[in-house]
Amino acid sequence: MSQYRVLIDADDEKGLVYKVSTIFYNNDLNILSNSEFVDKENNKFFMRSVVDGQIDVENFKNSIYGVLPKNSTLEVIEPKKKNIVIMATKEMHALGDILIRHEAGELEANILAVISNYDKLENVVKKFDIPYITISHENLDRMEHESKVIECINGFESVDYIVLAKYMRILTPRFVETYKDKIINIHHSFLPAFIGANPYKQAYDRGVKIIGATAHFVNNNLDEGPIIAQEVIHVNHAYGWRDMQRSGKDVEKVVLSRALKLALEDRIFVYANKTVIF
Amino acid sequence: MSQYRVLIDADDEKGLVYKVSTIFYNNDLNILSNSEFVDKENNKFFMRSVVDGQIDVENFKNSIYGVLPKNSTLEVIEPKKKNIVIMATKEMHALGDILIRHEAGELEANILAVISNYDKLENVVKKFDIPYITISHENLDRMEHESKVIECINGFESVDYIVLAKYMRILTPRFVETYKDKIINIHHSFLPAFIGANPYKQAYDRGVKIIGATAHFVNNNLDEGPIIAQEVIHVNHAYGWRDMQRSGKDVEKVVLSRALKLALEDRIFVYANKTVIF
Amino acid sequence: MSQYRVLIDADDEKGLVYKVSTIFYNNDLNILSNSEFVDKENNKFFMRSVVDGQIDVENFKNSIYGVLPKNSTLEVIEPKKKNIVIMATKEMHALGDILIRHEAGELEANILAVISNYDKLENVVKKFDIPYITISHENLDRMEHESKVIECINGFESVDYIVLAKYMRILTPRFVETYKDKIINIHHSFLPAFIGANPYKQAYDRGVKIIGATAHFVNNNLDEGPIIAQEVIHVNHAYGWRDMQRSGKDVEKVVLSRALKLALEDRIFVYANKTVIF
Amino acid sequence: MSQYRVLIDADDEKGLVYKVSTIFYNNDLNILSNSEFVDKENNKFFMRSVVDGQIDVENFKNSIYGVLPKNSTLEVIEPKKKNIVIMATKEMHALGDILIRHEAGELEANILAVISNYDKLENVVKKFDIPYITISHENLDRMEHESKVIECINGFESVDYIVLAKYMRILTPRFVETYKDKIINIHHSFLPAFIGANPYKQAYDRGVKIIGATAHFVNNNLDEGPIIAQEVIHVNHAYGWRDMQRSGKDVEKVVLSRALKLALEDRIFVYANKTVIF
Repeated sequence: MSQYRVLIDADDEKGLVYKVSTIFYNNDLNILSNSEFVDKENNKFFMRSVVDGQIDVENFKNSIYGVLPKNSTLEVIEPKKKNIVIMATKEMHALGDILIRHEAGELEANILAVISNYDKLENVVKKFDIPYITISHENLDRMEHESKVIECINGFESVDYIVLAKYMRILTPRFVETYKDKIINIHHSFLPAFIGANPYKQAYDRGVKIIGATAHFVNNNLDEGPIIAQEVIHVNHAYGWRDMQRSGKDVEKVVLSRALKLALEDRIFVYANKTVIF
Repeated sequence: MSQYRVLIDADDEKGLVYKVSTIFYNNDLNILSNSEFVDKENNKFFMRSVVDGQIDVENFKNSIYGVLPKNSTLEVIEPKKKNIVIMATKEMHALGDILIRHEAGELEANILAVISNYDKLENVVKKFDIPYITISHENLDRMEHESKVIECINGFESVDYIVLAKYMRILTPRFVETYKDKIINIHHSFLPAFIGANPYKQAYDRGVKIIGATAHFVNNNLDEGPIIAQEVIHVNHAYGWRDMQRSGKDVEKVVLSRALKLALEDRIFVYANKTVIF
Repeated sequence: MSQYRVLIDADDEKGLVYKVSTIFYNNDLNILSNSEFVDKENNKFFMRSVVDGQIDVENFKNSIYGVLPKNSTLEVIEPKKKNIVIMATKEMHALGDILIRHEAGELEANILAVISNYDKLENVVKKFDIPYITISHENLDRMEHESKVIECINGFESVDYIVLAKYMRILTPRFVETYKDKIINIHHSFLPAFIGANPYKQAYDRGVKIIGATAHFVNNNLDEGPIIAQEVIHVNHAYGWRDMQRSGKDVEKVVLSRALKLALEDRIFVYANKTVIF
Repeated sequence: MSQYRVLIDADDEKGLVYKVSTIFYNNDLNILSNSEFVDKENNKFFMRSVVDGQIDVENFKNSIYGVLPKNSTLEVIEPKKKNIVIMATKEMHALGDILIRHEAGELEANILAVISNYDKLENVVKKFDIPYITISHENLDRMEHESKVIECINGFESVDYIVLAKYMRILTPRFVETYKDKIINIHHSFLPAFIGANPYKQAYDRGVKIIGATAHFVNNNLDEGPIIAQEVIHVNHAYGWRDMQRSGKDVEKVVLSRALKLALEDRIFVYANKTVIF
């Protein structure tokens, strides 16, 4: 008996649940959990089922494709550790939280490597016997530097997600398109507030009473990709911007780890620059 | 075309989703939303679907009963305003919040009456053209007083929920059983902490940093019925117990109104002294 | 024995606490609570003390002014109900929450009147024996309409705060300057995100996972005045923008009432387009 | 110029702020921040000031003692790293969070050692070049085992705090009294709910909608010491108790690190089995 995650993203039409659950039934599958969502406005149907039983995956997929509208997306996934690459710059909190969770066995992931444009974090990463690859951007233009990063990532056999754990360089459209819906970023602000440089300084200047962080997939427009998770904390007048930054780090690491967990468990659908999360 | 809420509470077995959705499909129903939950530990299956279409409700129910295990519970509900009776004592905040929401058209409910053992709130209730019935407990023992309350409630044609908006008297088992799973109470503490008298004083004495409120169905054991909703706020050393009480009122009214809304929308299943909420 | 709130807003310099507390001591005052904040960056000192004792307020103020730097602001306030005017348009939730709190005796305020550009809320306001004044904007340009509103407000002997409880018209600089730091607005978004029209639609389109509301003083730049209080709630993909709006109303009313309470208790200092709140 | 934290815990009497601030002024000290709290009910006065200037600490303390009531407590602390010992059992999350924060330079602390009754966490602790001391409890009674732990701790020159990062053994009164107000524990429940064994199982059985964690000083009554910090998260019917436990870990580590930070910054006063936190 194996467990499978069945993910369907289709145009909505009457009878989809009936048709899909008929196939589950005919394959003698046990439904462990089942989530559906219909976006009426966009006429879209999303379904994530966790089932167990014995199936031939290819036949099973063909059966389901047979009842779905054209242009549907279907995934049937056997849960296993996904391969991730982490990119970071100089800050340790978000990276460190992932390293400790990984070490504690909390993440369904293999960390293939940490790539950074500095060597500052090498010491801590090496403690965990994870390869640390410094690709300095010095004396390189953006495209040259990025080409080296892409070459490095492509050197791995299979990369499911690239996690930007406070990677402080802007990615080019080429990079983003190469890894579409595979790059998870933590933005140190409650998007869409305070897009751009030093959001904590901006938040301080504006006198906000709440600050937050946003985990999102990266698309071509900086800070505008589909949001996966957000969290906030209350602040007050006694917080200078560096205090906000310090407190913000705790939110950042929590939100990034939460988003990563959702991705690793195949709980996220992306469409219309948004996410459906089961 | 009408809308229906279909609620199923059954022992779990393979194929339930398939069988029920087949009936939906055969009745040409459109699924607007669909939620399922399986409690493996207790082998229980819960499903709430909102569908639209044209059905003969009795036939439709019989079809579904035909595919459900024995002893299942099935409800097919056409959304309409439910009838509620509110019971209160002297405090206005929770009652007032419901009155204003009702006035604003936020609640799918008719308020048949407010019953109180004091006349203190009569003035505000009357403003909203809602009957206010004072049933004093003076010179009556608990059973006598409660008999009068039951008589009063039974005088209404149909009562879907009884909302205890800070009704500060203990109900007897007879009362609770008469209206099983129909009485919603707001408890002024984060249950199960601080059961009993003056929870805010207890919380203050214990030096907690968070206080909360709990909305729950009432069962025979005081403060131990199935929890519907909970919420909390942070407090600190500068809060005396009366400050906690004052701040707590805001939480109480929010939580009670949230629980009432869930009940009015038929989103709550009760079992094993817990709730499943879709 | 009377209670006084002493509020000081001054340029910071060494010895301010010493000098002011010396005067408290010499006047035989008992300090009930005492809060100070120094903004190093702007070299500003803020202090709010609640004291009790017997003083001649004018002499007392002169003593304190004697030890403060030039251009300091000092207030010595005997707590009493403040006079407020509420402005609303068509939505009941924020207004209703204030009305019920007022009725319950939770607010240190007299509500002089509710002014609206529609008569839609007259019915509910009248229930509470509070004057409802409809000043329609039809067939009037913005300045004409506003002149009528100002004339109406100026007809009251003394107005401490103007509360915009979902007043959906833009105020002109003239209006704002007339009541500088006296107008409290609730903005139906987590500022500075989603400035402008229909923030809930904007939030929905952006796919955010948290929505919020902001209470702020109004200045000349729409939505950019000093923030008093903010609160948020989590949402998910199943929320359409109208669901967000519905849920947002609960946040709006909570935040506006919280901000109003802070103002009525003289807990807010405004400077540098921010607030210090004790 | 040095910075000092001045902490006063005294019976309240008129003029304390005046008298203490006079001494600050006479010593030409600059007040960077100043917090006071008076507990009327217990007639207690608490003050924490951060000042900078040049003082002879002994003379300065004597001056302040001279104006305080008898039996007052006064501390004048030059900020520096405190020495902590961490005790753990088998779980990594709370310990790991402290290790990473320490590595990132977020904590004003030297970690002298991690003591555990198992060797399970040795591998991760050693990565950070921190001594890991296994003191097995096997074949030892509670007193014998604890004596070994005390001996080990006493082997360090100076220990400011003992942090129980999920140390799953009960401490005897002897141990607790040896390190009074120095032992910080994280309890995996929102105290005082679910005292005792397996709080997550208890919470699950009770059907709560919120779970939490509590950091507190340890006293003789298990789980009843002064609370320092609490935090909660929302859960729902889909959480089994192991899911609650998993999610709870995130809350536990956040709360413990927050409490530790407050202690390291000398922000906590303990009295009447409660804390005052500035």
